[in-house]
Amino acid sequence: MPKPSKREDLLASALETFHTRGFHGTGIKEIADAAGAPKGSFYNHFSSKEECAIEALRLFGDERRLDMLAAPGSPPLERIRRHFEFLRDEVVVRDFTRGCMFGNFATDVVDHSEEIRAVVAQSLGTWSSALTAALTEARRDGAVRADLDPDATARFLLNAWEGTLIEARATKSSVAFDTFFLMAFEAVLR
Amino acid sequence: MPKPSKREDLLASALETFHTRGFHGTGIKEIADAAGAPKGSFYNHFSSKEECAIEALRLFGDERRLDMLAAPGSPPLERIRRHFEFLRDEVVVRDFTRGCMFGNFATDVVDHSEEIRAVVAQSLGTWSSALTAALTEARRDGAVRADLDPDATARFLLNAWEGTLIEARATKSSVAFDTFFLMAFEAVLR
Repeated sequence: MPKPSKREDLLASALETFHTRGFHGTGIKEIADAAGAPKGSFYNHFSSKEECAIEALRLFGDERRLDMLAAPGSPPLERIRRHFEFLRDEVVVRDFTRGCMFGNFATDVVDHSEEIRAVVAQSLGTWSSALTAALTEARRDGAVRADLDPDATARFLLNAWEGTLIEARATKSSVAFDTFFLMAFEAVLR
Repeated sequence: MPKPSKREDLLASALETFHTRGFHGTGIKEIADAAGAPKGSFYNHFSSKEECAIEALRLFGDERRLDMLAAPGSPPLERIRRHFEFLRDEVVVRDFTRGCMFGNFATDVVDHSEEIRAVVAQSLGTWSSALTAALTEARRDGAVRADLDPDATARFLLNAWEGTLIEARATKSSVAFDTFFLMAFEAVLR
């Protein structure tokens, strides 16, 4: 198996470090150190910390498992539930830390970087489109009420999810997740 | 009128700077500079950046206008709507920047400071209690369904609000707010 390139090492380290410490809490030296690379080599692969953060955001997006929302063979509401359970478990296993990099960057960086803002907006849009598609299917199947607006509902639920991560991290408790599932499936998705 | 104390100047400057730049993006020198004080004087009033941030968070909490949720003379759902409209307007007037300091600190700092985590959790709890009280009143008045759970609904709506700020900041658009009001009042609060 070919050895992963130094760029891949740096990118994996960047994702881990940005996710754990945030954009402003992360230095290029830390990314390089964690990848076992000299700090100077960072600039052989990325033009700036910002460019590296954008690549890390894209990598984070690839790991969101949006495919779970479209997987055939189970009803759309069940797929939606499993998708959020997957995302919940990621946070619980980390003792309620780290949260969602989209939300972290939206509160930490988007006011200060137009490029990162655009990527966060695009990432949230890709995610809500996948959820919108599943909700459209659920509506067609009669699993939710006929007048449910799939796009507004998808964006509202993703926002509720991002806030749920905020509550879960602040309280270090699963109660926020339990409330999300209760309210999403019993009050919003009917 | 007595001149505000240097501590008050520093605290006002800290609130502004932490809110604009985040915890990790803010240095003590910036807080002192914005207050027109020498950096060294900061430590006459605060033992650490963290202690100062906690005071700033409390000041931010005092400005959330939770009193709007309890104001007599108008129906509870109308008070809730006005409260969130007030919070929305704060963000719109700042061109969709800054957001909510509770959410910002929850994504930026709570993993790294137990003291700040506790204050963010407490602040969110105070806020959701005020919203729970208004929802309990709405349920008693028959303005929402009889089986609505005021506490779960309050926390879910605050989380949806925090996520709405994330979407609004990332997209620099009021659409997220419009969706929040539509979904909160048409789908959740029935």
